Amino acid sequence: MGTAEETDGQETPWGEVTPEAARRLLVAAVEAFAERGYHATTTRDIAGRAGMSPAALYIHYKTKEELLHRISRIGHDRALSLLEAAADGDGAAPDRLAVAVRAFVHWHAERFATARVVQYELDALSDEHRAEIIELRRRTDAVMRRIIKDGVDTGEFDVPDVPGTALAVLSLCIDVSRWFNAQGSRTPEEVGALYADLVLRMVGAPK
Amino acid sequence: MGTAEETDGQETPWGEVTPEAARRLLVAAVEAFAERGYHATTTRDIAGRAGMSPAALYIHYKTKEELLHRISRIGHDRALSLLEAAADGDGAAPDRLAVAVRAFVHWHAERFATARVVQYELDALSDEHRAEIIELRRRTDAVMRRIIKDGVDTGEFDVPDVPGTALAVLSLCIDVSRWFNAQGSRTPEEVGALYADLVLRMVGAPK
Repeated sequence: MGTAEETDGQETPWGEVTPEAARRLLVAAVEAFAERGYHATTTRDIAGRAGMSPAALYIHYKTKEELLHRISRIGHDRALSLLEAAADGDGAAPDRLAVAVRAFVHWHAERFATARVVQYELDALSDEHRAEIIELRRRTDAVMRRIIKDGVDTGEFDVPDVPGTALAVLSLCIDVSRWFNAQGSRTPEEVGALYADLVLRMVGAPK
Repeated sequence: MGTAEETDGQETPWGEVTPEAARRLLVAAVEAFAERGYHATTTRDIAGRAGMSPAALYIHYKTKEELLHRISRIGHDRALSLLEAAADGDGAAPDRLAVAVRAFVHWHAERFATARVVQYELDALSDEHRAEIIELRRRTDAVMRRIIKDGVDTGEFDVPDVPGTALAVLSLCIDVSRWFNAQGSRTPEEVGALYADLVLRMVGAPK
């Protein structure tokens, strides 16, 4: 698969990772994991893609798992902060839900390679790191439930099963990272607008 | 991940694969691909899991790709036939859509290991085999579009973007295979019922 990355509205992808050599290695790891899977990728592969020696890689990352953890941590932090910004924004619950869905879809479409690694390679993390990431996912679920519950409380939404609906909404958005590249006829913005409309229907928001 | 399989309402999983040794190798390949990824799995791993020698594997499958193709072909055939049965059933469009969603979700929940391999390892197929699978996916999309369009034509559904909505409905159901195992508090039937309700909302079907 092509994995040319991706700006995410940030000035530089993975701009929070310094120094530059550590950032290049992380970008190379995302590409390699997305193409071949975590278990089939060696640190030698990653160093080679970054134009560096294996010894240079070990200066920045002691293990392959440390690279995966860094990618997963940054990806989950970013997805959570997008949702929190939408949840804490101004406006009624339908507006905040639409903003949340558009932002979450946009991230999973534009940064599909990162999103796939983050979503599909959880089992490869160490127990400690997996527990940390699962806690971030629990918080992400909680933010989506909070937006939906706000709309139920104000009577703007009609939702019999808030946890199940929150799970379905997040799942719908996350799966964009699986199909987005293959069916490239829609932009991330167009998918976000379509999905915001579909999700408002799922929660029974009047038009 | 645990990948204990899964009955799919068929008497024996992969019961269409004969002889028995070929079936055991296929089950072992699904488990290995789901746990470690296609590229990190060797034919020796697969033979070992099936309690057979590499030489015995080659009697049934010439390459690892042939195993993946067989899994992907059977999985896609099964998912397509479930949808076609629902689309061709009796009843109004909302009933047929609900049956289709329940069946599709049930398959992706109960056979999550197979579904992940089928959905995530498309890029590892040969060009010829990938083209064959993509044609099956095109037909799957067409069946979902047909059910939705039937409801639009009768005035039972209100859907501005039929292709986009069909894509979203299938994507929502497919992603069940990603999260189902981890959040095991709902049965496949319960997820199917919830999702049928959510999808009827997505297409604007009156309650």
